[in-house]
Amino acid sequence: MSHRVADELGYKDMDNISAASSRHNSENLPYVHKVGVPPKQNLLKEIAGTVKETFFADDPLRQFKDQPRSRKLVLVFQALFPIFEWGRNYSLSKFKGDLIAGLTIASLCIPQDIGYAKLANLDPQYGLYSSFVPPLIYAFMGSSRDIAIGPVAVVSLLLGTLLQNEIDPSENPVDYLRLAFTATFFAGITQFTLGFFRLGFLIDFLSHAAIVGFMAGAAITIALQQLKETDIVSVMRSAWSAAHHGWNWETILIGMSFLAFLLVAKYIQGKKKKKLFWVPAIAPLISVVLSTFFVYITRADKHGVQIVKHIRRGINPSSLNEIFFSGEYLAQGFRIGVLAGMIALTEAVAIGRTFASMKDYQLDGNKEMVALGTMNVVSSMTSCYVATGSFSRSAVNYMAGCNTAASNIVMSSVVLLTLELITPLFKYTPNAILASIIISVVISLVDIEAMTLIWKIDKFDFVACMGAFFGVVFSSVEIGLLIAVSISFAKILLQVTRPRTAVLGKIPRTTVYRNILQYPAATKVPGILIVRVDSAIYFSNSNYVKERILRWLADEEEQLKESSRPGVQYLIVEMSPVTDIDTSGIHAMEELFRSLEKRDVKLVLANPGPVVVDKLHASKFHEMIGEDRIFLTVEDAIVTCAPKMDLEP
Amino acid sequence: MSHRVADELGYKDMDNISAASSRHNSENLPYVHKVGVPPKQNLLKEIAGTVKETFFADDPLRQFKDQPRSRKLVLVFQALFPIFEWGRNYSLSKFKGDLIAGLTIASLCIPQDIGYAKLANLDPQYGLYSSFVPPLIYAFMGSSRDIAIGPVAVVSLLLGTLLQNEIDPSENPVDYLRLAFTATFFAGITQFTLGFFRLGFLIDFLSHAAIVGFMAGAAITIALQQLKETDIVSVMRSAWSAAHHGWNWETILIGMSFLAFLLVAKYIQGKKKKKLFWVPAIAPLISVVLSTFFVYITRADKHGVQIVKHIRRGINPSSLNEIFFSGEYLAQGFRIGVLAGMIALTEAVAIGRTFASMKDYQLDGNKEMVALGTMNVVSSMTSCYVATGSFSRSAVNYMAGCNTAASNIVMSSVVLLTLELITPLFKYTPNAILASIIISVVISLVDIEAMTLIWKIDKFDFVACMGAFFGVVFSSVEIGLLIAVSISFAKILLQVTRPRTAVLGKIPRTTVYRNILQYPAATKVPGILIVRVDSAIYFSNSNYVKERILRWLADEEEQLKESSRPGVQYLIVEMSPVTDIDTSGIHAMEELFRSLEKRDVKLVLANPGPVVVDKLHASKFHEMIGEDRIFLTVEDAIVTCAPKMDLEP
Repeated sequence: MSHRVADELGYKDMDNISAASSRHNSENLPYVHKVGVPPKQNLLKEIAGTVKETFFADDPLRQFKDQPRSRKLVLVFQALFPIFEWGRNYSLSKFKGDLIAGLTIASLCIPQDIGYAKLANLDPQYGLYSSFVPPLIYAFMGSSRDIAIGPVAVVSLLLGTLLQNEIDPSENPVDYLRLAFTATFFAGITQFTLGFFRLGFLIDFLSHAAIVGFMAGAAITIALQQLKETDIVSVMRSAWSAAHHGWNWETILIGMSFLAFLLVAKYIQGKKKKKLFWVPAIAPLISVVLSTFFVYITRADKHGVQIVKHIRRGINPSSLNEIFFSGEYLAQGFRIGVLAGMIALTEAVAIGRTFASMKDYQLDGNKEMVALGTMNVVSSMTSCYVATGSFSRSAVNYMAGCNTAASNIVMSSVVLLTLELITPLFKYTPNAILASIIISVVISLVDIEAMTLIWKIDKFDFVACMGAFFGVVFSSVEIGLLIAVSISFAKILLQVTRPRTAVLGKIPRTTVYRNILQYPAATKVPGILIVRVDSAIYFSNSNYVKERILRWLADEEEQLKESSRPGVQYLIVEMSPVTDIDTSGIHAMEELFRSLEKRDVKLVLANPGPVVVDKLHASKFHEMIGEDRIFLTVEDAIVTCAPKMDLEP
Repeated sequence: MSHRVADELGYKDMDNISAASSRHNSENLPYVHKVGVPPKQNLLKEIAGTVKETFFADDPLRQFKDQPRSRKLVLVFQALFPIFEWGRNYSLSKFKGDLIAGLTIASLCIPQDIGYAKLANLDPQYGLYSSFVPPLIYAFMGSSRDIAIGPVAVVSLLLGTLLQNEIDPSENPVDYLRLAFTATFFAGITQFTLGFFRLGFLIDFLSHAAIVGFMAGAAITIALQQLKETDIVSVMRSAWSAAHHGWNWETILIGMSFLAFLLVAKYIQGKKKKKLFWVPAIAPLISVVLSTFFVYITRADKHGVQIVKHIRRGINPSSLNEIFFSGEYLAQGFRIGVLAGMIALTEAVAIGRTFASMKDYQLDGNKEMVALGTMNVVSSMTSCYVATGSFSRSAVNYMAGCNTAASNIVMSSVVLLTLELITPLFKYTPNAILASIIISVVISLVDIEAMTLIWKIDKFDFVACMGAFFGVVFSSVEIGLLIAVSISFAKILLQVTRPRTAVLGKIPRTTVYRNILQYPAATKVPGILIVRVDSAIYFSNSNYVKERILRWLADEEEQLKESSRPGVQYLIVEMSPVTDIDTSGIHAMEELFRSLEKRDVKLVLANPGPVVVDKLHASKFHEMIGEDRIFLTVEDAIVTCAPKMDLEP
C-alpha cells in the first residue's frame, strides 16, 4: 500500500453553501484534507504490538532499557525481591512509622485471626499461623507499601463453605485440614500462574459493582452466621435471664462492653479522625483482654458463656506432606483453590491499587500476583490457609503511618511471640467477643455509600451489585459469585452487541457536529443525514449497526415526508469512534452501501481512523464507494456534498 | 440535575495563541461552547430504551403503530404467516418464476438429500422426507423469498457425528433414529425459543471468520469421508484393475462421467454466467439418471460397484412416538439438538440476510427463527431430521428467478411425487455418484477467496478462521466449533480490555486534531498532551485506560526532558469516542486526576457524550476537576488553556 502523508487538496470556493460552512467562508480559500493512510505495518511488528499492549501494557521492562547486562541482573533480582531495592534506602525514621503501624495491625490481627479461622472451620491457631509466614514472604516479594497480609473474612468464609461441601469438618477433621492446605496450594499456583503469564487483566472481568455486592452479601452472611452460631444469642439470653433471675452480671458486662467498644470504634472511624486511628485499632485487643480476664476470674464459662478453650502453642508445623497431590481430593482442592485464589487476588489487587494511587507509586499487578502466589504456595506447606490483603488492617496500617512492607515483618514478629508465649492465655476468651470483633469488621464491608453511587451512576451496575448481594445472602457464596461474574460478562457482551449510534447536527457558529439529543441547538443539514457509530464494528455488532443506520434513515425520511420536504441524498457516517472493523464489519458496510444505492442515497464516510482506513483499503471498499467519498471531517464532507444536491425537486 | 441547553459563553480574544487557533483568530470574537447536559431521563424510560435497543433493535412493531385493533389482529396473523401477506398479491407471472426455480432446486435436492442422509448415518428416504415437510411449513411461516429449505451437508455431518458418539447406528439403528428425531425436536425448540424471546443476536457471537473456517473444515472432512468411506476409491480401483484386466468399462464410464459433470458444473458456476445456472443445477440429476441406467443395464453392482439398494416408498410416517421425552437419551438429544439447531440457524440466517440484502427487503431475524423452529419441531414428528437453508440450493433458487417462498412448495411437491412414485428407480444408483455430488457441493464451501480477504483485513480473524478449520479437520466438528466460539469470545474480551488510545496533534490550517501516527503532518501543541480514548470506559478496561494515559504522559515527558523543553502542563483527554462510563471508569478518572495533580498537570476533558456527562454529574466528578475544565472540542480546550501557560520557566 502506498505510504501517503496527509497532503491537501484544494478545491473551489462555494459561496452558496455558507450556511454549512462559516469557517470555509471566512477564509475564502478552504481546503479539504485527505484522510491519512498510515504506513503499512510489518505483520510481525503488528502482532508484537498487540501482544505488548495485551500483556505488557504497563511497560514493566521500561527500566531495563539500555542497561548493561550486570545491571540488568541486579534489576531482575530487585524486581523479584523489592525488599532489596527499598531496603537500601531504609532508615530509622522510616522504621519508626513501620514499627507503630506493625504493632497496631498486630493487635488488630490477633483476635481477627482466631475468629476468621473459625469461619473457615479451622482451629484458632491456623489463623495465627497465616499471620506469621505469609506476611514475612510478602515483605520480601511484594511491591505494595501499605497492604497488610493475613487471613481475611470473605476468603475464610468462601473457603469454609466450599470445603464443607466436600468434607464434613466435624466428622473428618484430618482430611478437611488436608483439603484446606491443598486448596491453599492451588490458590497460590493460580495466582502465580496468572501473574507469571501476565494474565492479571483477567481479574478485571469482575466488575467493581459486582465486588461491592459480593462483599456486602458475604459480610451480611458472616454477621448472621456469627449471631446464630456463636454465643451472642446465648449471651443475650443469659443476660436476659440474668435480669430475671439476677446474679449473672458477668455476661451482661461482656455483652455490654463489646457493644460499647464496637460503637465507639465505629463512631471514631466514621468521623475519619486520622489521629485517633488507634482507638478502633486497639479496641478489639482491649476487649479481648478485658473479657478474657473477667471470664477467668468469674469462671463465666461455667455459667454458659462459651470460650475458645484451646489454642496450640508454638509456631507453624510443616504441612508439606498433608497436601493431596493425588487421589480423589486433588481435583476438589484444585477447584476450590482456583476460586479462593481468584477472590483473594481481587481483594489484594484492589487494596494495592487503592493505596498505590493514594500515595502515587506504580504497582505492577502481575508482579504482585507472582508475589502473592509464591506466598500462598509456601504458606500451604507451613500450615497456613489462604492469606491475602485485608481491607480493614491495610487501612489501619496506612493511617498508622507505615512506610514500607516492613510493618508486615513487625506484625509477623508479634504474632510469632504470641504463638510462642501467650496462646494459653486465650483459653478463657469468650467466643462472643470474637464474633463481635468479626461483625464490627465485616459490617464495614457493606458499603452503602458505594451502592448509592453505583445506583446513581449506572443502573445496570446496580443490578449486578444487587444480584451478587442477594445471591450470596439467599443462596451461597458460590451462587453469588457466579451471578456477579455472569452479569459482568452479560454487560460486556451487551456493550459489544448493541453499540450506541447518534444523529449529529451542526452546532451554530461552529464547524462542529454533535449529537442532537445532547445539543438541542444543533441543527440538521437539509438533504444530509449524519450518523455517528460509537464503537468498533465487529462481527458481534456489524449487522445491528447496519440495520440501525438504515432505521435512522427510515425515521428521517418519514419525518421529511410528513413535512413534504425533499428526501435524504447523502448519508454521512462519522467514523471517528470506529476504532476497528473486521471482515463482518466490512461486509456490513458493503451491504449498507448497496442498500443505500437502491434508495438513491450516497454513502459518505468521515474521519475513519488508521486501522479502519487500512482495512478499507485491504478490502477495496474505498474503491467501491469512491476515494472521494471519504473525508477528514464531517464539515469537509458537507461542504463537498451540499453544493452537488438539488434541493428543489 | 439542571436541564441546560448548549448555550454559549463568550470570552476575550487572545492574539498570542494564534498558532493554536486560526479559526478563532480570523473571526475576532471566538466562542467557547459549553458541553451539553442532556435532560435527565426517567429511570423506567431509560430501562425501556435499553430493552428496546437490545431485543427490538429492528423495530418489528413499527407497522403496528396507530392501527385499529382489528387491523392489528390481521397484522399479527400476517406476521406469523407471511404467506397470507404476499399470497394476496400473488400472480401467474410470479408463479412462472417460482415454478422454474422450484423444479430446478427439486432436481438438485433429490440426489443431495439421499447423500446427506448417509452423512447423518440415516437411510436415504429420511433425506427426502426432510425435503418434503419442512419446505412446506417454511413456505407458510418464513419471510425469506429466496431460501431453499432442506437437509444440508454440514448439519448432517454434525448430527451424524454427535449421534454416533452416543449410539452406534449399525448396532442399534432404532434408538439411533429415535435420538435423531429427539435432537431435531430440540433443535426446533432451541430455534423457536431464541426467536420468541428475541435472543437472535446471540448467534452473532459466532464470527464470520469462524464460520468460514468451520464450513471449510467441515467441507474437507465430508469430502475426505466420502472418498474414503464410499466407493470412489473402489471405483477408481476397479477402473484401474479394469484397465489392467479389461472389460469393466462401466465403472470407468461412471467415474469419468461424474468427474466431467463436476468439472463442467464448476466451470460454469465459476464463470458466473447467470443464464446458464441450469447446467450445474441439473448436472447432478442427469448423472444420477445416466449412471443408474448404466449400472442397471450392465449390472455393475455385481462387479463391485456399490449401489443405494433400497429406498422406502411413500411419504413421511409419523414419528411423534419415537421422540425420547424421557429416559437417558433425553439429555443427550437435548444437547445435540441445541448444538445442531444453533448451527442450522447460523446457516439459515446468513443465507436469509445475504439474499434480503441483495434484493433489498427487510428480514426479521427473530421471526425467521420462530419459523425455522416451528418447522423443525413439526419435522421431528414427521420422520424428518434437522432441515435448514442450503447455501447451494438457495443460490440456484435465486438465479433461477424465484419470487416467493412458493418455489419451496413446488420443490416439496416434486419430492412428494418422487417419494410416491419413483423411489424404486433409485435402487441401482451407484453410491459413487452420490459421493461425487456431495463433494462437488461441499467443495464450494471452502471459500479460499473469503479466507484471503480475512487474512488481508484482520489477522486475528484469520487465526479464528484457521483455528476452526484445523479443529474440524484434525479433531472433530465439536472441537472445531468450540475453537471457533472461544476465539470469537477471546476477540470480544480483548477488544473491551485493551481499547486503543491515541495521541492527537493539530492538522495544519484547521481546528482539527487527529492521531499523529495517522497524520504525520499533525503537530503537537507545546506544553499540552492530547490523548484520545477510543472506547467506553468500563470495569474491564478502566485500570488499563488510566495506566495507558499515564504512560503516554511519561513518554512525552521523557522526550521533552531529552530536548530540555518545558514539561506538560495540561493533559486533554478527548472523550468523543467514550460512549459510556461506569463506576469503575469514574474511579479510574478520579485516580487519574489525583495522579496528575501530584505531577502538577491539569486534567481537561473534551467533548464527553451525553451518557458520560450525565454520569460525571451523578458522581460529582465535574465538581472535582472543575466545570470549566470540560470543553466541547479539543480546540476550545486549547485556546482556553494555552494562554494560561508559562512556557518559559
